[in-house]
Amino acid sequence: MRAAFYVSDGTAITSEVFGHALLSLFPMEFEHFTISFVETKEKALAAREKINKTCKRTGETPLVFHTFVNPEIREIIDGCDGVIYNFLEHFVAPLEKQLGISAKPKAHRTHSIHENSYDNRIEAVNYSLANDDGSNISNYEQADVILVGVSRSGKTPSSLYLALQYGIKAANYPFTDEDMDELKIPDFLKAHKKKLFGLTIDAQRLIDIRTGRMSNSKYASARQCRMELREVEKLYKKENIPFINTTKFSVEEISAKILSETGLQRHKY
Amino acid sequence: MRAAFYVSDGTAITSEVFGHALLSLFPMEFEHFTISFVETKEKALAAREKINKTCKRTGETPLVFHTFVNPEIREIIDGCDGVIYNFLEHFVAPLEKQLGISAKPKAHRTHSIHENSYDNRIEAVNYSLANDDGSNISNYEQADVILVGVSRSGKTPSSLYLALQYGIKAANYPFTDEDMDELKIPDFLKAHKKKLFGLTIDAQRLIDIRTGRMSNSKYASARQCRMELREVEKLYKKENIPFINTTKFSVEEISAKILSETGLQRHKY
Repeated sequence: MRAAFYVSDGTAITSEVFGHALLSLFPMEFEHFTISFVETKEKALAAREKINKTCKRTGETPLVFHTFVNPEIREIIDGCDGVIYNFLEHFVAPLEKQLGISAKPKAHRTHSIHENSYDNRIEAVNYSLANDDGSNISNYEQADVILVGVSRSGKTPSSLYLALQYGIKAANYPFTDEDMDELKIPDFLKAHKKKLFGLTIDAQRLIDIRTGRMSNSKYASARQCRMELREVEKLYKKENIPFINTTKFSVEEISAKILSETGLQRHKY
Repeated sequence: MRAAFYVSDGTAITSEVFGHALLSLFPMEFEHFTISFVETKEKALAAREKINKTCKRTGETPLVFHTFVNPEIREIIDGCDGVIYNFLEHFVAPLEKQLGISAKPKAHRTHSIHENSYDNRIEAVNYSLANDDGSNISNYEQADVILVGVSRSGKTPSSLYLALQYGIKAANYPFTDEDMDELKIPDFLKAHKKKLFGLTIDAQRLIDIRTGRMSNSKYASARQCRMELREVEKLYKKENIPFINTTKFSVEEISAKILSETGLQRHKY
């Protein structure tokens, strides 16, 4: 199998995203290796050695995705037996020309604590955890958005993703079996109706997920799942709560759609 | 202020990472706009209109980062008044040559639910939440890693990041004031000693964080913070528990360092 290396002097997140976006266009399997925090010549030499050994072992030229700007380290990595893809080199010069200033590679590093928005993001994570699953119904004043939906429709991972990645204070509140007799927006949510965003999910997917957690229960039964979903969707429509069906979407997609539909601003770039 | 647009037919995460990595090299401020889910000609025309209006409003050429492969949509965006940076175009042809096959843009989309590892990641999030802050000490068999440290040293956000981004089942266990008299590894953690990873933090930073939560408390006092940190660091060294000081690092960096030091494999690429 062809090896792909993601090498960086930091977290390697940028190199991973860059390489992954490209490799996902090819219907092939790859063996992936991340080498992060390559900050010294010694570590660069060790990384190069690892790439060269993999080249010998597999008999195929490894693909090496990196974004090094330090010339000493870049030269070492560029001298490996792999084929180098460095996306900075194609774009820095045109951007310098367009912006009329020189790039200053040491001024700032992405994915570090020095990003302006870092404290916001940690605060948002703490908020979302404290307000997960209806655990703190007195604290919705601070919420940027309140996700609602039945159990296992994707509220918790979506709230956490919104908080961690975008610094959005996302609370979430579950509609449970007890709410179903006469489903309405609870009084403590009414004052925050504009912040509500509904999640729903296909019945079969919900049955599968709940069965995985509690098989042969009323909770996981087809009848119960269908009834709960019917009721919440009716509520969303009646109350004009924006909502999405999460069945075919990842947390990344759900979160991006929520931002797109609500117009909430990301606290991270 | 110069405007930067991140435009995509999906979440726009790749375009954001790509553009952000480049712009962070320049000591300037930018106004950021993400336009996600541009999947139709109509949405592409609306995106182009927004870019062109921003160009008129600011009097400066907007920077447009995108990764469109659909030629119809790409043409519309490329026809805007902004300057286009499309990282795919520089790399797809060389990769096709290197791999000996053609790119198939529709085969797979990054950041979607179709990634192999998606269910692992959601399972890991559920695990990390259920095992946050020592809440489930009987369940460490399943853990990939168990983060330990004093309250507010960064355990919870790091556990969640490891789970959400990398599908790592990261539990975390706090050492509290009551543990300090004779600090040792609790019996229920001893069997999992190889999974332990310690976090520590500079005393002043810990004092600041705890003061923000509970000012004028013993919990936030300089004396208490220093004592707890001294004790846990002594324990890490005595028991040979690998550890890092989180003071200057983001959750992305802490997580990447934990993966790098433990050799744990990411479940996502």
